[in-house]
Amino acid sequence: MHETGDDFYCEQALSGKTPIDIVRETEDVLAFHHTRPFWPVHIVVIPRQHIPSLTQLDGVSIEIVYRVLDLVREIAAEVEAEYGECQVVTNLGRYQDSKHLHFHVASGESYGRNIESHEAKTDDPTEPE
Amino acid sequence: MHETGDDFYCEQALSGKTPIDIVRETEDVLAFHHTRPFWPVHIVVIPRQHIPSLTQLDGVSIEIVYRVLDLVREIAAEVEAEYGECQVVTNLGRYQDSKHLHFHVASGESYGRNIESHEAKTDDPTEPE
Repeated sequence: MHETGDDFYCEQALSGKTPIDIVRETEDVLAFHHTRPFWPVHIVVIPRQHIPSLTQLDGVSIEIVYRVLDLVREIAAEVEAEYGECQVVTNLGRYQDSKHLHFHVASGESYGRNIESHEAKTDDPTEPE
Repeated sequence: MHETGDDFYCEQALSGKTPIDIVRETEDVLAFHHTRPFWPVHIVVIPRQHIPSLTQLDGVSIEIVYRVLDLVREIAAEVEAEYGECQVVTNLGRYQDSKHLHFHVASGESYGRNIESHEAKTDDPTEPE
């Protein structure tokens, strides 16, 4: 397992160390409610395999990224249908705190600016920074 | 051509009515500088074929969406390498003003909140709403 302290997804979510509320899962991809939501609706979609970011695949097949996009589309369609609006975001470089590819699928007025906040190293999952 | 007044990309950019500054193009996909940028770096990536949104393909093959993502990745990697940070965003429903699939590839401090602003019907390309 990838274990460097900068990957919430491998180290906390996929490992089971931090409980997650799963929205949908496939063989390759997992969608779950952000543990420290930054919007009223805030779901993250990630590959189970470690992929550092949208621009750094580290040898993982691009097909896995397409499978991530497939689930993003599915979840986003449901959010859009239910709430009438949805945004899909992924961050890179300094904007990306947790170095594991993740798409935010969000709706509603944001609680602030740092949408990466659950990747902060804190024990409080309820208090966005 | 799709012509309903709610698609900046088909009606203005792809038609040539509004001049665009192309960053990269392929047979299926076009990347160009946003005509009313909302970030210091603001590139939009669109399919040449009319696709209403990430969640509404209107019969167009999902392969075209994957080709869009391929160019998004390429452009985002360049922006990330040059500026150290980059975000990739697409909007749906009420968040999406122009009903043609487009990904924003952006970097730097935003000039405000409405990233869809170039799709507003205005003759002034310099004044984001």
